[in-house]
Order: sequence, then structure tokens, then C-alpha cells
Amino acid sequence: MSNKTALLLIDFINSMDFDGGENLLENTKEIVPNVKALKQEAKEKGVPVIYVNDNFGLWQDHVDDLIEDVKKGRGRPVIEELEPSKDEYFILKPKHSGFYGTQLDILLEQLDVDQLIMTGIAGDICVLFTANAAYMRGYDLWVPEDTAASEYKEDNDNALKIVRRSLQADISSTKDYSIDDFMQKNKG
Amino acid sequence: MSNKTALLLIDFINSMDFDGGENLLENTKEIVPNVKALKQEAKEKGVPVIYVNDNFGLWQDHVDDLIEDVKKGRGRPVIEELEPSKDEYFILKPKHSGFYGTQLDILLEQLDVDQLIMTGIAGDICVLFTANAAYMRGYDLWVPEDTAASEYKEDNDNALKIVRRSLQADISSTKDYSIDDFMQKNKG
Amino acid sequence: MSNKTALLLIDFINSMDFDGGENLLENTKEIVPNVKALKQEAKEKGVPVIYVNDNFGLWQDHVDDLIEDVKKGRGRPVIEELEPSKDEYFILKPKHSGFYGTQLDILLEQLDVDQLIMTGIAGDICVLFTANAAYMRGYDLWVPEDTAASEYKEDNDNALKIVRRSLQADISSTKDYSIDDFMQKNKG
Amino acid sequence: MSNKTALLLIDFINSMDFDGGENLLENTKEIVPNVKALKQEAKEKGVPVIYVNDNFGLWQDHVDDLIEDVKKGRGRPVIEELEPSKDEYFILKPKHSGFYGTQLDILLEQLDVDQLIMTGIAGDICVLFTANAAYMRGYDLWVPEDTAASEYKEDNDNALKIVRRSLQADISSTKDYSIDDFMQKNKG
Repeated sequence: MSNKTALLLIDFINSMDFDGGENLLENTKEIVPNVKALKQEAKEKGVPVIYVNDNFGLWQDHVDDLIEDVKKGRGRPVIEELEPSKDEYFILKPKHSGFYGTQLDILLEQLDVDQLIMTGIAGDICVLFTANAAYMRGYDLWVPEDTAASEYKEDNDNALKIVRRSLQADISSTKDYSIDDFMQKNKG
Repeated sequence: MSNKTALLLIDFINSMDFDGGENLLENTKEIVPNVKALKQEAKEKGVPVIYVNDNFGLWQDHVDDLIEDVKKGRGRPVIEELEPSKDEYFILKPKHSGFYGTQLDILLEQLDVDQLIMTGIAGDICVLFTANAAYMRGYDLWVPEDTAASEYKEDNDNALKIVRRSLQADISSTKDYSIDDFMQKNKG
Repeated sequence: MSNKTALLLIDFINSMDFDGGENLLENTKEIVPNVKALKQEAKEKGVPVIYVNDNFGLWQDHVDDLIEDVKKGRGRPVIEELEPSKDEYFILKPKHSGFYGTQLDILLEQLDVDQLIMTGIAGDICVLFTANAAYMRGYDLWVPEDTAASEYKEDNDNALKIVRRSLQADISSTKDYSIDDFMQKNKG
Repeated sequence: MSNKTALLLIDFINSMDFDGGENLLENTKEIVPNVKALKQEAKEKGVPVIYVNDNFGLWQDHVDDLIEDVKKGRGRPVIEELEPSKDEYFILKPKHSGFYGTQLDILLEQLDVDQLIMTGIAGDICVLFTANAAYMRGYDLWVPEDTAASEYKEDNDNALKIVRRSLQADISSTKDYSIDDFMQKNKG
């Protein structure tokens, strides 16, 4: 069993209480079952699950409080489906990229990870810019197209196209590609 | 006269000797006159001009050698039009973002810059990811749409759309917007 | 009242359950009253109080759990005197420098801070290296010599000498110098 | 022959035209033969030699110009003995740590280096803080005590003591320890 792959969940813990949040919520609801299934598969295979989430201007690193607070908003149904458990990693990020001002790179090095599966919202902001930061640091990427959502579907598609072309990431759907496929990819 | 704005020229010093380089060269030639005019205007206004350029696997920080070497390639006509002079800053970057593994942020802080004008190639890779890094660091951005080029025009347009929407940058053409407009923007 | 200064408390939340921990505990107990008084003064003056603390290999950003866990160790008397309240910032660091792999720099910029008061343990490791990182980022430093402790007093003195000489920091005792003195320093 | 070790030369290219520069020059002259011998040995063994040097406020990455300029100062005899050749890496750093605002970490990763030999001046500033940054990034360190110099010998000794104790580095003299010894250390 490989321990070189990790699964990231980006910004799913989100109140969505902002202009355009309703659109984002609708588009996110469509991908939640795919993310949930992928997370389940990751746990069965011993692939570490790492939440990388906006700190929403809180700087106390109290994750439990943040989750309770955010749950009061429009995004509650998403949070309830994808709520982190205590055996999963949870990293707060202050900006769009999950690598900027966070311990993510250090954690991944300690876990000896060199392949990343990225899921999250919004596809055209935080997922895109975290994917870019990961690419510059040499991680091999799979950003399943059915596990990223944005406010507008066209913007999501554009962002995924850039992820595929400029970052050389695989964007296969979880329907066509599995964690096993990804982990086998660089072997033999 | 404000000294808070700087002009970046990203990756114009490029051999273009790679697959797709011919396309990129054609598209770059179209924007070179706009970049050259903008650079001229910047110098007249005392706005610092900063080249931020791929190191092409050279790690000796010998810029003159790098320029001579790169000039042997397909991109020579672009380099000849936009060749840096010794009174302009020149920063080598090892990866896509001009802020990753470089002194760019430190230089901009020393110059007291908080507004950036970004020009460069490719629009859907290095310009996009440098723009993102600048946005996270709080810089106000103008990425003129007629000073960025990519291998495919559609990809360039997609990237600029993300720059405008996700990074809240101005992407007005230099035909409609000037350095003075940008410098006045945050005043009074 | 200025909001440009912040007070850091480095690694006081510590089990001290390691070789040499007894020595460190004894030396830390001596400075705790000084740190406590300084923290009280900071709060009265509206100076933000920021804990910057080792994550002890926990990567869940659950600060409350970490504090409870660490309290079971030898360092409990220190933690009880300096326990953070919810209105104080708390940043987890994965390595020695408080700026490496953390959001500290971004938080300080948002708070518009350019002067730092540093207290903490160990003076010859985490305080020294956080002070260096702060110096490179242009912060003006006061590291009161009576608010830093190390396992060995001689090593603590050596480290403070380097902080004063190489980092141009003030290391005056809190007996001779106050937050007001430090905040006035760069004025007029 | 291992390619996992690299030799760093920190700040030897230095005009020494500052207060205290005479002292530093005298102390540096004593270590120059040791550094020169170590560099020779490194080249024979295929160990990459990397200069990491202050940019002295120049931001053009024109290394040749910088060296010629700096040679006009008091430090000329040191530079003449340790002048870089074109097959050696040369990285400009804007601040004290060789890892801050530079491509050093990226270069070392590309070279697959995990063991660093550090030589340089000043021992109590740039060598100390580069050593700390290397330690946090997981590099194994040898800082030979007879290849670092500072303005005052006592400060140099204090700094080396911190390097040994806080950074768990070897500080053996090149008289007692060789590149081969260091490269063998983590084997078998």
C-alpha cells in the first residue's frame, strides 16, 4: 500500500454567505457525493485526508469553533456531508493558495507525499491556485473534474482546462479513474 | 510623481525553441509594440521596470550570458525589441510564479511598490501564476490584455478572464487605459 | 494609542517532557512573572497579543486540544500562568522560526504591525530564529532579556548577545524599558 | 560517488568596506586556505560548489559586474583566492539567510542534495542564519569551525556553539573531518 498520495479537500467548510453563494452552493451540491465517495476510498486505502480551508479572518487556529460558526450559514448542507473527523488533518489557510502562509508543504514532506488528489471549491480560485503552487513544488496532480465546483460552470471548465494544460494535471472524472489508477501511474 | 507603481516584463527573454514555440512567437509579435510603448512610458514617468524571467536551468545568475544564449533561438526578434538595459531590474525565476524562489517581493517592498502592471508570456502560465501570487500579497494589478500572449488565443482569453474575475485585476487594453490612469486610481 | 506594535509569546505552551526540560522549567519560572506583567500591559494598551507555538506534531489546528494535552506534562505551572484567552491570537508553527510555514507574516501585515516585542523559550533556539526571521522581514525588535529563557543560562546570554549585535534588537530588561518607550522610539 | 552533498560559500565576495571590515578581513584571511582546500576537494569529488552571496543592493543578477565592483574594496585578497568559475553555481541573496528570497532550496532539490557543508562570513550573522534555515528544511549540516569567520572571534565561537547545539550540526575542523567522512555518515 503506497503512502505517497494524499487527498486534499479545499474550502468545503464555507458559510457561502456572499454574493454568488447560492450559485456556488448549487454547483457544490452536485459534486459532494463524488468527494464523499473519494474520501471514503482514501480512508480505506490509508491515503491521508487533509482539509485545507480558509480561516475566514479567524487567526486563533481553533478549528472546532470555526466549523461551528461557519455551519450557521448557507453552506451547512455541504459541511454536514463532508465534516472532518479528528483523525483527519486540518490546515487553515489565510489566502487562496493552500501553500501560502501554511504548513501544508512541511506536512506533505513529513508524510513523504509526492502525489496529490485535489478536490474543492471554488475551482476557478482556490483550487486553481493551490494546484499551481503544488505544481511548482513538484507534486504530481489529479484534480478530478467532478470534484471541483465554481460559481459559474463555464469558469470552472476554463479553470480545469488551465489545470490540465498549464499544470499538466490529470483531470479525469472519478467515474473513469480511481485512486488506485493514480497511485499506479508512476510505477513500473 | 508616484513611485508606488512598477512595470513587470515576464519571460520575454525566451528562445521559444519548444513545441508550440512558433505559435507563441506569432502571438507575441503582435503585443511587442504595446509592451515597448508601455515600457517607454514607464521610463518617462520614473516607474521602475523589472524583468522577471525564467532562468532556463541556469543557476549562475549571469544575466548577460543568459540573454546571449537565448538570443540564438527562435525568439530573437522579440528579445531585440525588448532587450533590458543595465538601469532596469532583472530577476531570474526558477519556476512559473515570479514570486516563488526569487527576491521579487523584497525588491518591491524596498521600492515601496503596491501597484503592479504585468506584461508577459505565456498569459495562461507564467503571467497568470505571477498575477495570482501578486494578488495574494496584496498588490493592486493591471494586466493589459494587449500585452499578454499565449500559444493559443482562446487560452489567453480564458486566463485573462480568470485574472479579471478571480484576482480582481484590471485587464483594460493600453489603448483605453494609461499608466497615469492606473496610478490615479487609488487616490482621492 | 498606536496599533503598530505586537507582543509575541513563543512556545510557552510546552510539556517540557524532554531531556533538559527540568532545567528549562526552572529558568522559565523565573521569567514568567515578567512575561505576565508585559502581557497585562500590552492588553491595557491595545497591543495585540500573539501566541506562536510549536504544534508538537499535531496538524489539526485544534488549539484547545493541544493545550489540554500539553498541560499534562512538566510545564503545567508555566501554562497555567500564561494561558491564552480566546481574544488573543494563537498561531501554530511546525518548526523553530515562527515565520516558517505559518500565517504570522500575513497576520502582522493585516494588523499593520512593524514593531515586535518577543518573549519566549528557548531563547537560544526558537526565540533566536524567530527574531532572525523578523529582522529579515524588516520588523523593529525588542527582545527583553528578562522574558527569554533557555536550558542553560550561558547559552541564553550568548543568544541574546547575537540578537542584539547581529539583529540590532533592543534587549533591555522590562525593568528598564516599557512598551511605551518602545512604541515612542521611532517617532519624532 | 555521492551527489547528495553540496558545498556552500557564503558571502566571501565582499568589499569589506564597512566599520569593522578590517577585523573581519583579518579573521577571514586565516580561514581562506581551509576554504580553498575544501573547495578543491569538493570539485575532485564531484560535490557541487554553490556561492550564496549578498547582492549588495544590486538587483540585476549580473554576477560578473558585481564581482568586479566588489573587488575594488578592502576584501580583494579574499575574492582573488576564492573567485568563482563559470561551472560553479552563484546565487544572489537579498538578506542574511541564503534561503530567504532566493532559489537555493529549489536548486538543492533539483540536485537531490540533503547534506550541506557551509563555509562563510560572517559566522555570527549570515552563516548562522543560513544554517538555521537549512536545519528547518531538513538538511544535515557540517559547518567546519575553521571555515567560518566573524568580526570578533568570541562572537564567532558563540555562533558556532549555537550551530552545534541548537541546529545539531557537526562543527569539526577540516583538520579532523573530511568530505568523505561527512558523506559516509548517514550510510550503513
